[in-house]
Amino acid sequence: MSRLKLLFHVNESDKWQRAFVNITNFLNDVGQGNADIEVVANGEAVLSFKSSSDQLNGTTSGSLMGQMKKLSEMGVNFVACRNALKAQSIAEESLPNFVTVVPAGITEIAKKQTEGYAYIKP
Amino acid sequence: MSRLKLLFHVNESDKWQRAFVNITNFLNDVGQGNADIEVVANGEAVLSFKSSSDQLNGTTSGSLMGQMKKLSEMGVNFVACRNALKAQSIAEESLPNFVTVVPAGITEIAKKQTEGYAYIKP
Amino acid sequence: MSRLKLLFHVNESDKWQRAFVNITNFLNDVGQGNADIEVVANGEAVLSFKSSSDQLNGTTSGSLMGQMKKLSEMGVNFVACRNALKAQSIAEESLPNFVTVVPAGITEIAKKQTEGYAYIKP
Repeated sequence: MSRLKLLFHVNESDKWQRAFVNITNFLNDVGQGNADIEVVANGEAVLSFKSSSDQLNGTTSGSLMGQMKKLSEMGVNFVACRNALKAQSIAEESLPNFVTVVPAGITEIAKKQTEGYAYIKP
Repeated sequence: MSRLKLLFHVNESDKWQRAFVNITNFLNDVGQGNADIEVVANGEAVLSFKSSSDQLNGTTSGSLMGQMKKLSEMGVNFVACRNALKAQSIAEESLPNFVTVVPAGITEIAKKQTEGYAYIKP
Repeated sequence: MSRLKLLFHVNESDKWQRAFVNITNFLNDVGQGNADIEVVANGEAVLSFKSSSDQLNGTTSGSLMGQMKKLSEMGVNFVACRNALKAQSIAEESLPNFVTVVPAGITEIAKKQTEGYAYIKP
């Protein structure tokens, strides 16, 4: 089987935890490093990136941001929509360094599917 | 990059506004006319097509139907599932002329993906 | 048109009924036997597989499990995520025989999309 590529679309804050469980179970199944995983956040889901540096200091590994950081260290790409960040008044400079900002989350989601990424909505 | 093709699946009325924001941000990013966009509505989401002609007369541009009409003028295709219309007792003749009716929304969604459309669930 | 392949992703119990309506309408449109349909359940949605044998005895055809059984007899494949079953304390032996268990639902969903299955989230 060729290398799997997965695109997770998260647009509601209460779906983050579910997405992390999905990704963790997937990585446990196929093995870390054996797939390309990207998570694109738009809508109000980007709120979970807020005050990220504060949360990272002294965060427990179980926090949303702690789990994100851990998954990013396993190779998962986190992408935020610039329109959504503006709508939620989140400064790009405040984002953790493992988050990439794109002009529009929807464009990123569409592009990735043309590149063979499977779409998954947790 | 080849021309992007996007299929938005809306099956809950409260997701329309989110879909319109997604589409507007996308069009602002890639430029009007540079992508193919189709919105397929099934389930109770087709309720937003009801009494459409009334809503269009004197509608403010901010109403759901007003936004739909504006996006349709920008080239976005709106498609409604006939089964859903029947389930909601909506007469096809009452639909605004920019809405196309298909026998089954799911068939349309599946076909479009085989034609290279990216699937997006707002 | 080549044979359509559809992958339904159900991760919330209250989406089962909607999925069944989607599948039924689709089959009525294209004709039974003219498409490949798989339903992958993960998350708490697998709870609907619980006590399945009890539900099947004397079940009315309108129950969730009754509808699942009927659709499986029409060729629809039902797949459950092992991680989700464990999380909900559901023994695999208790599942109806038309349900296939996979190590991780997300892997199955991604694989099927690489095989040309359209993704649909009811």
